[in-house]
Amino acid sequence: MSDMTVIGLGAMGTALTEAFLDKGHAVTVWNRSPAKAHALAAKGAVVAASVEDAVRSSPLIVVCLLVYDTVHEALAPAREALSGRTLVNLTNGTPEQARAMSQWAVTHGANYVDGGIMAVPPMIGRQHALILYSGSRQGFDTHSEQLDALGTSKYLGEDAGLAPLYDISLLAGMYGLFGGVLQALALTGSAGIPAGEFMPLLMSWLQAMQGGLPKWAEQIDAGDHTSNVVSNLGMQAEAYVNLIDASKASGISTELMLPMQSLMKRGVAAGKANADLTSLVELLQPPKQVD
Amino acid sequence: MSDMTVIGLGAMGTALTEAFLDKGHAVTVWNRSPAKAHALAAKGAVVAASVEDAVRSSPLIVVCLLVYDTVHEALAPAREALSGRTLVNLTNGTPEQARAMSQWAVTHGANYVDGGIMAVPPMIGRQHALILYSGSRQGFDTHSEQLDALGTSKYLGEDAGLAPLYDISLLAGMYGLFGGVLQALALTGSAGIPAGEFMPLLMSWLQAMQGGLPKWAEQIDAGDHTSNVVSNLGMQAEAYVNLIDASKASGISTELMLPMQSLMKRGVAAGKANADLTSLVELLQPPKQVD
Ligand SMILES: NC(=O)c1ccc[n+]([C@@H]2O[C@H](COP(=O)([O-])OP(=O)(O)OC[C@H]3O[C@@H](n4cnc5c(N)ncnc54)[C@H](OP(=O)(O)O)[C@@H]3O)[C@@H](O)[C@H]2O)c1
Ligand SMILES: NC(=O)c1ccc[n+]([C@@H]2O[C@H](COP(=O)([O-])OP(=O)(O)OC[C@H]3O[C@@H](n4cnc5c(N)ncnc54)[C@H](OP(=O)(O)O)[C@@H]3O)[C@@H](O)[C@H]2O)c1
Repeated sequence: MSDMTVIGLGAMGTALTEAFLDKGHAVTVWNRSPAKAHALAAKGAVVAASVEDAVRSSPLIVVCLLVYDTVHEALAPAREALSGRTLVNLTNGTPEQARAMSQWAVTHGANYVDGGIMAVPPMIGRQHALILYSGSRQGFDTHSEQLDALGTSKYLGEDAGLAPLYDISLLAGMYGLFGGVLQALALTGSAGIPAGEFMPLLMSWLQAMQGGLPKWAEQIDAGDHTSNVVSNLGMQAEAYVNLIDASKASGISTELMLPMQSLMKRGVAAGKANADLTSLVELLQPPKQVD
Repeated sequence: MSDMTVIGLGAMGTALTEAFLDKGHAVTVWNRSPAKAHALAAKGAVVAASVEDAVRSSPLIVVCLLVYDTVHEALAPAREALSGRTLVNLTNGTPEQARAMSQWAVTHGANYVDGGIMAVPPMIGRQHALILYSGSRQGFDTHSEQLDALGTSKYLGEDAGLAPLYDISLLAGMYGLFGGVLQALALTGSAGIPAGEFMPLLMSWLQAMQGGLPKWAEQIDAGDHTSNVVSNLGMQAEAYVNLIDASKASGISTELMLPMQSLMKRGVAAGKANADLTSLVELLQPPKQVD
């Protein structure tokens, strides 16, 4: 018997396996393409011949594959073997997918824990890698010490959909940031400014602007977007025109920028010109039920 | 005579005036709506009766109005008075607008300096407020000590368009970030999670992800997007589907997220599935000239 089995040896599954091995655990691994297991075998992992063997080798099964369809496909031949084990699925998915998979796993007698990895592979095994978990409290508690090998664990509750909800919300924030950085680098790059020269400025500017986010949270929780406004939406919508025009003038695509402009315009049209940018959150949400 | 004149007393012009006053400077002010000058008059500012009087009162004219059209409109009656003075325009605009205004100002005998304020009003007067300048070196040098009252000054070069180029690129990064944060807060808010509870997680996640940006700069400057990839674009494009689906399932608008998805898809279609996200920058830029 191994302490845990890792199914899926992409960039992330490999990092997870290495973190378990580093802590001295006995790890069984399986991957569709067997070649990816070689380097881990050399580090002491046991390579299972089939996914069923892999599942039967450990009480804790950690899965990290591309998408949930892949997980269903990969685990199907091993479903009878899941009974009495804990399945921790660290594959990225939606809350709905996590809840459905939880139901499927529980039907087969497993404890199901869903997880969201808030880290890139090189961070795994270190404290600043945050791993969100939700689902079976018993499954999580039984294995939390082993799971702590991967980073800092945070258990969010029994609803398996919670970890993916947080995960996806955090990723939404990240992709906004990344889209903005891509646009900024496209603009400066086209003007011949090396990214290495511009990046320190960009990083400290983003840093400064994130200083305002705790105030965003307060405003949103209070539903008050008009007190102490220092950057009114009307002014921001006007400046945003310059961002679009400057991109156009350099031949840079405005595709990543246009939706924010139309959102701002909708905000101004809805009478929010003197409000803060935070007032736009509700324009993204479904209309509130009026009782 | 005053030391400087501030034209435009919105949230930002007011903060600029206060920073000059705090350093003991004699400041003349002018604003279209005179009411905004009252509080500054009480703090010692001299309120000019006309924009022409305002310009004639100081060797240094700092303008901070809504957009460049506003600046042209506001300064038109005072153009004859500009000769021999330094005009520092801190209004947000494009590089093209800055160059055109520089030409106009020089025609009227002024030294023209364009500026980009990388700060919100409450930061003005403190070191972490970065003010970018470009244009007349002589104008900047003559007044740089006074301008230092506003924050940390950074002079970028004689081309008046440089400060707006940097400014707009930094803002593009910021609006990406802000759009992502709005989306994240819409998602978690709809699930009943208070923004104050989610924000610390989001902030430390964004922090962690910004740790990768210096590597982005290296990859972009080297034109190498395929070495040591830990989060391949193909995987990211698959996970992104989950972001869209989860937003849809909660009734949250996907408008801010869709363009990044189509950009990723274009990247994958162009053979970048095993490359890093940084490879997308060139898809935003105009096609390179082949000689
Ligand atoms: N890398 C990151 O930065 C990161 C961060 C957080 C979360 N994640 C999540 O972690 C998961 C894995 O990501 P990764 O970076 O490891 O991706 P990856 O390097 O592209 O690896 C993908 C894995 O999925 C397997 N796979 C794909 N299609 C399959 C199929 N039809 N049947 C069986 N296996 C299949 C691959 O097997 P083969 O080797 O046989 O192709 C491989 O093991 C994803 O859900 C991702 O969103 C990744
Ligand atoms: N606030 C920030 O966070 C921030 C940060 C960096 C840069 N900026 C830039 O600073 C500039 C000013 O922003 P702000 O925050 O001070 O905006 P604001 O509070 O909305 O003030 C706008 C100013 O423009 C004047 N104005 C507008 N239309 C005019 C017209 N047709 N003729 C004459 N004056 C006119 C207003 O005069 P009235 O009082 O008569 O309406 C007021 O003085 C903008 O270019 C903005 O992009 C702002």
